[in-house]
This record gives sequence, C-alpha cells and structure tokens, in this order.
Amino acid sequence: MAEENKSTLDPLASLCKRRGFIYHSSEIYGGMPGFWDYGPLGCELKNNIKQAWWQFTVRGREDVAGLDATIIMHPRIWKASGHLDTFSDPMTMCKDCKKLMRADQVEEIRAEQKKPHKDGCPYCGGELTEPKPFNLMFKTVVGPIDDPSNVAYLRPETAQAIFAQFTNVISTSRFQVPFGIAQMGKSFRNEVTPRNYTFRSREFEQMELEFFIRPDEATELLFGHVVTLADNPDLAGEPQQDWGWEVWHKYWVEQRKKFITAMGLPAEHFTEYWQKPDELAHYARACVDIEYDFPFGRQELEGIAARSDFDLTQHQIHSGEPQSVFDDPLKQACKKLDDAAKAAFIEKVQKEWVSRGKDPVAAEKFVKQLFDGRYIPHVIEPSAGVDRLMLALLCEAYEEQKLEGGDVRTVLHFSPKAAPIKVAVFPLVKKDAASYAMARDIFKTLRKKVNVFWDESGQIGRRYRRQDEAGTPWCITVDPDGAKDGTFTVRDRDTMQQERMDLATFLAKMTAALEF
Amino acid sequence: MAEENKSTLDPLASLCKRRGFIYHSSEIYGGMPGFWDYGPLGCELKNNIKQAWWQFTVRGREDVAGLDATIIMHPRIWKASGHLDTFSDPMTMCKDCKKLMRADQVEEIRAEQKKPHKDGCPYCGGELTEPKPFNLMFKTVVGPIDDPSNVAYLRPETAQAIFAQFTNVISTSRFQVPFGIAQMGKSFRNEVTPRNYTFRSREFEQMELEFFIRPDEATELLFGHVVTLADNPDLAGEPQQDWGWEVWHKYWVEQRKKFITAMGLPAEHFTEYWQKPDELAHYARACVDIEYDFPFGRQELEGIAARSDFDLTQHQIHSGEPQSVFDDPLKQACKKLDDAAKAAFIEKVQKEWVSRGKDPVAAEKFVKQLFDGRYIPHVIEPSAGVDRLMLALLCEAYEEQKLEGGDVRTVLHFSPKAAPIKVAVFPLVKKDAASYAMARDIFKTLRKKVNVFWDESGQIGRRYRRQDEAGTPWCITVDPDGAKDGTFTVRDRDTMQQERMDLATFLAKMTAALEF
Repeated sequence: MAEENKSTLDPLASLCKRRGFIYHSSEIYGGMPGFWDYGPLGCELKNNIKQAWWQFTVRGREDVAGLDATIIMHPRIWKASGHLDTFSDPMTMCKDCKKLMRADQVEEIRAEQKKPHKDGCPYCGGELTEPKPFNLMFKTVVGPIDDPSNVAYLRPETAQAIFAQFTNVISTSRFQVPFGIAQMGKSFRNEVTPRNYTFRSREFEQMELEFFIRPDEATELLFGHVVTLADNPDLAGEPQQDWGWEVWHKYWVEQRKKFITAMGLPAEHFTEYWQKPDELAHYARACVDIEYDFPFGRQELEGIAARSDFDLTQHQIHSGEPQSVFDDPLKQACKKLDDAAKAAFIEKVQKEWVSRGKDPVAAEKFVKQLFDGRYIPHVIEPSAGVDRLMLALLCEAYEEQKLEGGDVRTVLHFSPKAAPIKVAVFPLVKKDAASYAMARDIFKTLRKKVNVFWDESGQIGRRYRRQDEAGTPWCITVDPDGAKDGTFTVRDRDTMQQERMDLATFLAKMTAALEF
Repeated sequence: MAEENKSTLDPLASLCKRRGFIYHSSEIYGGMPGFWDYGPLGCELKNNIKQAWWQFTVRGREDVAGLDATIIMHPRIWKASGHLDTFSDPMTMCKDCKKLMRADQVEEIRAEQKKPHKDGCPYCGGELTEPKPFNLMFKTVVGPIDDPSNVAYLRPETAQAIFAQFTNVISTSRFQVPFGIAQMGKSFRNEVTPRNYTFRSREFEQMELEFFIRPDEATELLFGHVVTLADNPDLAGEPQQDWGWEVWHKYWVEQRKKFITAMGLPAEHFTEYWQKPDELAHYARACVDIEYDFPFGRQELEGIAARSDFDLTQHQIHSGEPQSVFDDPLKQACKKLDDAAKAAFIEKVQKEWVSRGKDPVAAEKFVKQLFDGRYIPHVIEPSAGVDRLMLALLCEAYEEQKLEGGDVRTVLHFSPKAAPIKVAVFPLVKKDAASYAMARDIFKTLRKKVNVFWDESGQIGRRYRRQDEAGTPWCITVDPDGAKDGTFTVRDRDTMQQERMDLATFLAKMTAALEF
C-alpha cells in the first residue's frame, strides 16, 4: 500500500465495494454490524487462500490429516476448553441512561466525550453497575424443547473439534505422533464492538492446525537426547523424530511465515512477536504472534502456540474418555532400561517438573506411563484467520500508482496464488475471425485449470486497467499476426511489460507461479 | 451398491467410521443427534464435490458469479422469504406423559406401538395439545442485549443471501441478465427428528445457484418470439438469449444431471421427478426433483425450481429497495414499437395473465415497465445438498466383491473426480534405492497437483486392498526394473488390471479424467 494510503482503509474499502470484493451483510435491510459478505472477486480470493492453506498444510504433507466438523457441538466441549467459564468481556451498564459498555473501555470512552463526566457513566454521570462477564459465544437451542439442558453454542474457534475428534482420527487413520489434524471453517464471536472493517467480525473463518508431538521426556527415552534450538537444527528440511517441543514450535513458526510470504506478504512487512512469559496462558510454553501493520494499527494475523498437553487432558477429564496414545517404539526403547536407569530418569524428570512448579507425584506417574509407551500428546497450534489474512493481502496489494503524464493507475498487486482472476484473455480485433477464435480456444483451455476472465469490449488499455483493479497478474492479448504463428502477448500487471509467447510457454510460467 | 446391501446402510456406515469418512459429532461426549463430522477421507471427498461444483457452475462458465455470505443475516430477510411465518412442522405434546411429537406423525407412531392406545397420545392415551407450528430455524441473539429486537437466525438455506445481495452483485460486476449467482455453505435446520445417517441433519452444506432470466414477455419484445421446449432447442449447446423460462429450466435440469453423472452417479441410477401442479409452491412454475434410491428409500438429492420473480419481489417489498434491472437492448427494441403495437401487446399479456388467475391491472403496469427496459428478473434455482450427494456417491460406490477363491474385496468405486485420494504410490522393494527414489519423485510430483497417498508397508496386495476401501482409482507401483527405463505399473481399482507406463502418460490420463 502506498504511503499516503497507509492511515486509512477508505480507498481500499471503496474499491472492495465497487469491484465486488466485500459487501455489508444484509445491506438492503440496513446491514448487520460485524457481518460481511464476499462478492464475486472476494469469494475467489478467499477460496484461493483456503485452498492454498489446505495444499500447503494438508495435501502437500504426509503428516497432517484433514477434518470437517460441525459448528454446533456438544456444550460440554466448551466447559472442558474453558470457553464457557472464561471466554468473556467485562460488561457494565449505566443505571440512568441504560447504555452498555465494556468495563475496560469506560475511561477510553470518557476521554472521547466532549463534555465528560468525571465519575460514573462517561455519557451522563449516572451510576454504573458492577462489571459482569459477558460471554462471547452465540447461544442457541437444539431440538424442539426450549430448555437450559438443550442450550448449545456456535463454536468460537475450530480448534476444539480437532481435540474432540482426536481419538477417532488416530484410530481410523494410519497416523502416529508426531502428526497433525487441520480444519478450516466458520467461527462465531458475539463481539461487543465489532470493528476495523472485516478484521474483527462476529462471523469469521479460521484455518487451524493442531500438530501433536511427543512430550520431550518421551523423545529423550526414545533417542537418548532431545534436539533443542541450541542444536541449530535444519528447520527448512524434513522434520525429525528427535526434535523437542521448542524446535517443533519454531519449525511451525517458519512454516507459517513461508506460507504467508508465498501468499503475497513479504517477510519484511510482518512482525514475529514472541509473547513474554507473563503474557502466556498458564498452560502455554511459548506463543508467537504474526502481526501486520494495518491502517488501523499493528494487529495479530495469526498465532503459533505451544499448548503442552492442556487441551487433550481437559477433554480426558471432562469426557472420561482416555486421550493418551500408545507409542510402540517408545515402549520397546523403555524395555531396554534397567530399574536403576528408570529410577534415575524418574528422579531427573521430577526435579525438572518441580523447578517449573509442578507436582513430583504427577511426574512419577507420567514417567511410569511413558515406560509403558503411553502419553497424552503435546500440541503446537498454528491458528490463522482467513478474513484477517485476506484483509492484509488487500492492504498490501493496494496501490494508486502515479504514471508518467499524471494519470493514476489503481492496482492490486496480488501474488498469482492469491489473485481471484489468474488470467484475462482479450481478442485485439473482435472482427478478425482467426485471432478471435484463437483467443476463445486459449480462454477455454485455461478455464479448465484456473479462474479466467474474457473481455472483448473497449480499448485494450481500458481492459488492462479493469484487470489491474481486480489484481489479475497476466493479460493475454491475441492479435491477427499471432493467429498465424500461434503466439500472443502476455502483459505483466506489475511491470506493464508485454512479452510474446505461445500457450505451452505461458502454461509452464503460470503453473510454476501457482504451485507450492 | 451390491443388491444384498441395498436395504441397509450398516456396512457402509461401518466402513465410513473405520476408514475415517464420517464420525458422530462430539462422540466422546455422547454425540449430538443430527450432527456429523467428516474425517480425513470424508473431508477430501466433500471438498472434491464442492470444488467440482464450483468449477462446473462458476469458474467454468462466463455467466455465473460467486458469493460467500454470512450464516447470520438480518432477520427481516426471513420475514421476506416466508421462513419466519411458514418454515415449521406441526408439534403436539401429551398433557400426561409430556412427550413431544410431530402432529402429522401421531398415527404413524401409534401403528408402531405394541399396545397402542386408540385415541389421544399414542404412548399413554393422554390428551394431546392442539398442534402448534414449530419453526425449524435456530435462533440466537446478536450483541450483548438479550432482547427480542436482537434475535437473529442461522440461515436455513443459502439461497436468500443471493437475493439479498442481488443488487450489489449486479451493480459491481459486469453481468447482465441472463446470469447467475452461486453460493456454497453451511445451513441449519432444527429438525424435530434428524434421521437417515447424514441425509437429514441439523447442520448441513448446500450448493445453490440462482440463475436470473428475463420474463418471457421481455424476451418476446426483444426477439419477437420466445423459444419453448416445443421448438426443440439444443440444450447441450450454448444458452441462447431468446429462450423462454421453460427452456432455461429444462437446460438447468440437464446441466445438473450432467454434473451428477460426472461425479459418479450414472443417469440410470437417479430419477427425474417433475412435480405435479398441485405439489408446486404457489409462485413456482415448475420444479424437478432429482431423486436417488437410498437404502432407506427414494429421496430427493436436489431440486431445480422455476420460481418466477417471487423472491426478488418479496425483498423489494420488505426492504423498500428496488430489485429491478435496466435492460438497454429491451428498451431500444421497445422504442421501435408504435402505440398500436404497444396497446396490442398489453392486451395480449393481460389475457395471458388473466388466464393464470392474475390481475390485468398489474399486467399493464408490468408491460409498461418493460417498455422502459425495466423488470424484476425471474429465477431458475438449482439447489443441491453437499452431504446428500456425498451420501449417494458413497452408497453408489460401495461394493463387497466376491473374488475367485471366495475372498471378499470391499471397494468404493468412486469416480476419479470424487475420489478422496486420486493416486497411491508404492515402492515394490523398499530396499532398492533407485526404484525407491523414483517412487518418491513420482509421489512428490503428483502431490503438487492432487491428493496422493504414500504406502511402503506390507505386501503389495494388502496395500491395494487398503486403497480399494478408500476408493483410490489408481495405484502406482515402482519396481527395480522400471527404475531403469522410467516406467511403473498403474493398477486400476475397478478392473484390477495393471498397465505399464511412464509419468507423462499417466499424468495425461489422470488430467483427462479429472477435468470437466
């Protein structure tokens, strides 16, 4: 995005409406705050992001399985995950003017008022109620009886379904730890103040991976060592069985950066923020936020958390169903240990756990289960928002380019992988039968593979500009001369240079740009 | 599906669980009736169906735009569509035993009882309440104030969002009538009795197209005639501007059959049911149900309805926003008519409308708007359920095949387009470095394009059987001899025949089978 547009979303939002990327939901009925619809170009962009993520995270790997679970799940899942008790914002109400607000935003609101009241309600000075937690999960009732026992929730994240189906996936697939389960889909949060365009919506889409790994103690028993970051492991190569959790975590941070870069955000345009120990959730060992400088400030695009065995343990407690796995190589390795070695290992783990404020009795029980080849896997969770990445790609791509002669060209510099339309095909001279037919043939061949746009109306320059605004990387123009030797010009969106080539050459160029 | 399995879903459901196609939602918490999750193979199958539909319906055509709207929309949309008032089942309750049931199923339930009570409650003979309509839309509350004015609904269909965004799409894209808007996504219906496996669920996914066409009167003004089915139009070729609604409707019926066939249901295995005049909704001119013989009976897979201008008119009334389009060629054509011709046309349309029980004054107003080039488009709606087609494909594909020697082979005969795994790659001799490396290369090349499975463990025959159960059309086995000349065997799932070829030959074969 050009410097002068950095402070506001307005020109981008205007283009997004005008060209059919993003609309207000239910606009003809006055809209729904916090809900946004994607138009013809928007849904292609969104689908491209999702399909690329799936290819990069699931199909392109041998160690990740897919899942597609329901949005409405058993309410006890949200008890186990902690969402029912703690997924809330503190709300307060003025007893006089009845206005509702987040208790943690009262002073902010007060500062915004022209004639602020010093105490109480920032709007009228009235008495504020005690802050009460407002749970952000949307509630509904399943079945015909409107009774508290039938209350269910729209999922506030896709991740919990992965934990809830962990035992099913592991028992019906041939995966063994380390492996991951990935899911994409809608989530819902009843935000008190949805804001910043599509960034914080009440209905949004997530792409989440839970990558299950051995506890470091199991890795040590198996291999006699645990690879740490200090060992300088090759994170760009194939993952290794003897990696400890911090290597796996860093590996996934690098994978996510690779993906985001491939989608069109250069690495120097986003920030890798490592949460400080006092910012981490109590069960988390590390968490990295990938942040982007949106026009409305630096905000989280996605997070990569090392969540220990917290989630599966919670579901084991709440469901009563064991969530541990059996690891035969681990059991075989432990068989070779004598009693003294086992006792020494128990003692070592106890010391380490105690140093982290954990219970030595629990440590002993845990290690004895390891000796039998059993443990609850730990998890690394790369969690991304589709809509947030999409908005970042739009912000990054947008440019109002001043051309020689004073003309302004509006361009979306999407990466080929993200671009909603990959190629536009133009016949230069509509009435020239041979080149027109050749253009149609090219169009029909390409649209079996990718999203292609046909445009035969208006001057060629205006057709290019329409595609610039849509972010189309390549425009193919077929002219009467080319019809003789099977060539055409390919105009590059960013350089505006034209190059003459044949279809086989173009197909190879396009395929290379689209593949991971 | 083999004859002996036709009466029950059990063997298929068992395979679907065992191989990770379909799980109960929230199974470790006892499940949620009417909610199903798709496992690793299931979500690939489902994604393939959705992506194929999108390619066939949107990307592969020049006259259809995509949309991706929210699940929670403005509640007035459901008032306009009629869902708020009429999308319900009649419920009754026994005043004694408090059992709830659908009033239209009381006699059915009575017949199922061992000691039936002749009157009243079929379970206990108690007095039944008057039937009350139970609305099937899931309710929720948007925002922090739990007040009737903030009640919203989870969409019971994706179609209404298309109507609600019709004016946005037409004003931000270059489409002109005739054109369509397509959407895929989750819908929710609070079924009183979800049943038949994944067929009637409370949360499901739809693929819907609203194809907007001119009213026949506009077509007649433009072309001087309206093509009807009696004119024997070519429905397999390019759509024509002078088609009337019944030709468009039949065209879409044929398109849908073509799609379903390509996905793996042969035409002779489904039924095209034309609704009788007394079965049609009051605004519908025709409706075709595509039906499939499931083990639990013949049921609707999808419907193709000619819905006149009912939906857009309703939204125009309820939103106050005009939903008509301006059709310049129509206006230009009408300019050439003299007053006498116009009067004659008005009279002709009035007669026709009156014969259909409609108002002659409204007819005159409608025609005068046509003369100005304005009308509310009519719509053809092909509406399909992803889960239903998926279940039909599973039923159709399932076979327990008795082989020579008495062995039984379980196969899913998926079409290549539907198959969750397209190719499995096996090194025949794991220890042979050259052929092992060649197999890995083939695997890595293929997985950039499609979902591929690598398997190097166990006898080759058992590897084939594992892929038969997953429905994988092709297994590539690389042997030491092949490593010398770059060839391998391709084993066909259905014929079990093996053919030797090189990678370029296989890629051409696979691509041809996957493209529309």
